Amino acid sequence: MNVNGRHYRTIWIKEDDESVVRIIDQRRLPHEFIIEDLTTVDDTATAIKDMHVRGAGLIGATAGYGMYLAALEAARAASFDSHMEEAAEKLLSTRPTAVNLSWAVKRQLDAVMRAGSPAERTAVALRTAVEIADEDAEFCRRIGEHGVKLIEEIAAAKNGRTVNILTHCNAGWLAFVDYGSATSPIYAAFDRGIDVHVWVDETRPRNQGASLTAWELGQHGVPHTVIPDNAGGHLMQHGLVDIVIVGTDRTTYTGDVANKTGTYLKALAAKDNGVPFYVALPSSTFDWEIRDGVRDIPIEERGPDEVMYIEGLCDGEIKRVLLTPRESRAANYAFDVTPARLITGLITERGICAPNEEAILGLYPEHRR
Amino acid sequence: MNVNGRHYRTIWIKEDDESVVRIIDQRRLPHEFIIEDLTTVDDTATAIKDMHVRGAGLIGATAGYGMYLAALEAARAASFDSHMEEAAEKLLSTRPTAVNLSWAVKRQLDAVMRAGSPAERTAVALRTAVEIADEDAEFCRRIGEHGVKLIEEIAAAKNGRTVNILTHCNAGWLAFVDYGSATSPIYAAFDRGIDVHVWVDETRPRNQGASLTAWELGQHGVPHTVIPDNAGGHLMQHGLVDIVIVGTDRTTYTGDVANKTGTYLKALAAKDNGVPFYVALPSSTFDWEIRDGVRDIPIEERGPDEVMYIEGLCDGEIKRVLLTPRESRAANYAFDVTPARLITGLITERGICAPNEEAILGLYPEHRR
Repeated sequence: MNVNGRHYRTIWIKEDDESVVRIIDQRRLPHEFIIEDLTTVDDTATAIKDMHVRGAGLIGATAGYGMYLAALEAARAASFDSHMEEAAEKLLSTRPTAVNLSWAVKRQLDAVMRAGSPAERTAVALRTAVEIADEDAEFCRRIGEHGVKLIEEIAAAKNGRTVNILTHCNAGWLAFVDYGSATSPIYAAFDRGIDVHVWVDETRPRNQGASLTAWELGQHGVPHTVIPDNAGGHLMQHGLVDIVIVGTDRTTYTGDVANKTGTYLKALAAKDNGVPFYVALPSSTFDWEIRDGVRDIPIEERGPDEVMYIEGLCDGEIKRVLLTPRESRAANYAFDVTPARLITGLITERGICAPNEEAILGLYPEHRR
Repeated sequence: MNVNGRHYRTIWIKEDDESVVRIIDQRRLPHEFIIEDLTTVDDTATAIKDMHVRGAGLIGATAGYGMYLAALEAARAASFDSHMEEAAEKLLSTRPTAVNLSWAVKRQLDAVMRAGSPAERTAVALRTAVEIADEDAEFCRRIGEHGVKLIEEIAAAKNGRTVNILTHCNAGWLAFVDYGSATSPIYAAFDRGIDVHVWVDETRPRNQGASLTAWELGQHGVPHTVIPDNAGGHLMQHGLVDIVIVGTDRTTYTGDVANKTGTYLKALAAKDNGVPFYVALPSSTFDWEIRDGVRDIPIEERGPDEVMYIEGLCDGEIKRVLLTPRESRAANYAFDVTPARLITGLITERGICAPNEEAILGLYPEHRR
């Protein structure tokens, strides 16, 4: 999507130098837009581990490009194969729970090792990295194509009055290669000239909404308003939200949705006020094993400092300030699970379906057992 | 309640000087405990207006003491009466929507003007100020006496295992003269040796939970954990909350509860998980006019800066940092309304009742029409 009026992806090959991969260093957003060059697999591992890049789709794509940089190094190394295997391990150890990461690394290893000479292998690695990124972008684009119809229907029903969409966390293009999942229908609607406005939950404790979603919507020109996570219920009670669209970190084949903490509270408010609640996801996010999401999806507990401290801009510098008494304890459950009964529908790259086993397997029959 | 092991109220007459009123400057909490001396009605007006003190009960008590300081000044002024009237106007203009403020000022004017000589009037003003503060503390104490039974029942049902209580915002002793409303049953339970633990919603955007509730619980020794406002739903889904107790800024005689934004979301989660949801309030908080709280209680919209910026401690200083893109808009609805259907009961100074007209008027028959 656009930044300062120019189209960007979150990861790409440098225009005049095929040995350099470029990313946006998301740690400085929304205060600074910094493009970072990655030239080694170590750079790439650091970028994933230290969260210069984040989000399932983008982590996968970055791992793909990291394996390409590894192949460039391997072509100059004593043993191509062992360098690639070391690189794979390095990347896999960065974010152990990211499914897309291991998937991308494995896909690269399979493709590269089947090719012939080091030069051919390098070419295959580049092609595969680009394919992984292109597929991610294409899946997100299709999510937008399907989801935009929901927004068009609301716009028609409202006779062209502003369609108010609420979202939580960042399921935007910054979390993928382009378009995003939850944001893709919004960008599609905006690009078609529909009058949309987005309520952006700030999404404590890491504030991905206030920092990333607000930034990317603003850069693309989409009208939006940042709100505390506490505000959504009041807005829905007063008819100020027409539809909720969120992303997900893991969705069971029965339609239970794990997403950033607080999503469940918004789903409850949507249900209580008759507001449609949709979850946008590429099919790679489905968990085909877990039946009961509330009971069985493990919820990551992160460190208390993310709750006790917050970062922001002060006198031109990023500062970290303490919010709580130093002696207080804090708890930091990163996700929650929204039961399928609260969800109106799932927006996937193959279309929109109800959040239940039959409908999901109807779209993905290859997963029937 | 206790601070550093010593009992405090939020406002009191200086031990050795009856012409000085002391308060805790709550703006520096939780990072610094500063006691401030008020010696004039202007000091008092500033303390209320600039939120050195806040909370319905404490604002009322501070206005009461402010009128006493005004009487001390009036005794030396050309016209006692006109000085008192000017002082009243000054205090009334500080926080125009605070019901307790106008009630306390009027009560003082009525009491003082009926007395005789300036010396008598000053004595009456002091007595009235102390009465207002004592009544506030006594009402809160009684809320604790009634509410603690709920906690005792849960403790008994859990065979003495920890009772987990969730609260939102600060309805603590810092918002009143002592005990607090939502916290009063908690302090009573703790002081009786019941094993309690409090989940403290940080309560964005002004973070009264993280800064004030966490501080006062910590100082009194009550085990507690600060959580993002997003976390309550997950905790309730997993049986980690036994009861929710919150305060209220206004409750209709039909049982609809206006409280800090986000309260409604917690009530929805409590209902969805069968967790009892109680609201603690002194009867001065009832609105005997409004029938439909969601429709008719006006919700204050505050400035966007409270959402876009946050204050915290950095290198020993309080700093204010920017959280959002500078160009993004932010909205700041300070309160929301929880419909009576989501509330288990109201804990008042006269006892606990169901959140409906019949039960509320049963406790307060003098308000039947």
